[in-house]
Amino acid sequence: MAHIKLPEGLPGIRGPMAFRPEMAKHLNAFTEALLRDDHPTLSRGDRELIATYVSYLNDCFFCQNAHGGIAQHYLSCSMDELDRIKNDFTSASISPKLKSLLTIAASVQKGGKHVTSEQIDQAKKEEATDLEIHDTVLIAAAFCMFNRYVDGLATSAPTDRMFYINRGKQRAEEGYLKFDLYK
Amino acid sequence: MAHIKLPEGLPGIRGPMAFRPEMAKHLNAFTEALLRDDHPTLSRGDRELIATYVSYLNDCFFCQNAHGGIAQHYLSCSMDELDRIKNDFTSASISPKLKSLLTIAASVQKGGKHVTSEQIDQAKKEEATDLEIHDTVLIAAAFCMFNRYVDGLATSAPTDRMFYINRGKQRAEEGYLKFDLYK
Repeated sequence: MAHIKLPEGLPGIRGPMAFRPEMAKHLNAFTEALLRDDHPTLSRGDRELIATYVSYLNDCFFCQNAHGGIAQHYLSCSMDELDRIKNDFTSASISPKLKSLLTIAASVQKGGKHVTSEQIDQAKKEEATDLEIHDTVLIAAAFCMFNRYVDGLATSAPTDRMFYINRGKQRAEEGYLKFDLYK
Repeated sequence: MAHIKLPEGLPGIRGPMAFRPEMAKHLNAFTEALLRDDHPTLSRGDRELIATYVSYLNDCFFCQNAHGGIAQHYLSCSMDELDRIKNDFTSASISPKLKSLLTIAASVQKGGKHVTSEQIDQAKKEEATDLEIHDTVLIAAAFCMFNRYVDGLATSAPTDRMFYINRGKQRAEEGYLKFDLYK
């Protein structure tokens, strides 16, 4: 049971967002810009993967599956393949640049000061741009917020992981600006 | 030196915000709603204190001093008094309700699942409302993002704490929507 009385029947972050639409409005606009707006080099799939990985590190079941479902849709991969990336991205078939960005994201999850110059140098060596590094840090930081928002209020969420996979495509197409969902 | 090339002469979060105004726009609108918009019971000073305390726990020098300066302005307290609250709020001359909310904020800083039913029960016993608990969790979560954003990019900031105190009043009056500051 959630720590406060939330509107019923809304999984994960949707309960608090319906409870406090004045905040949801800004959080959704921010998420849309961060994860979906046009980007010169970081695909939507890459960005959703960073969000999923940080949510996994924070052990947030709802976020890692909700964004995992979207990442799977964009990256055309299976749940098993995504789980393997989460468990050990270093051996996954993703680009060296994306690996270097996931390394930075993992440090941000621990705390901002955990990001090292060596990690940044490695990312730049793999031709990561300043914009990519910036956005990786901000996505990782943002999911340290969203994960805490979802779990800090003890929201509930479906335990069947297929629920999220089935919704991934729809969420990917609709984006994060459907405020009416939260009313 | 910051991990990426940021516009010069802008302390703390202002560098990344000037680098990426497309995100700053939403982050500032969110912060304005969260910390400054009318609230039935949580004063601006209370909210800035929660933000300051979480930034202190995350060891983010810029955020704890920038928001500390604003909190001092609203709460009419000295730097020493604010430092004493940060070091041990349980013995500070603040309300039992605010103490129970700071306890929740400290758990959120560790991770969402650290918030316990006992902490929530204690806050409700002190007559904290669901809205106050919600906003406390979201403020604490948000500063786990902002602190990581600031430190994850290794931004620089003035080390003289008086810089922040001198600006606290101005920032309190202007709010967070002066986008032109970030351009």
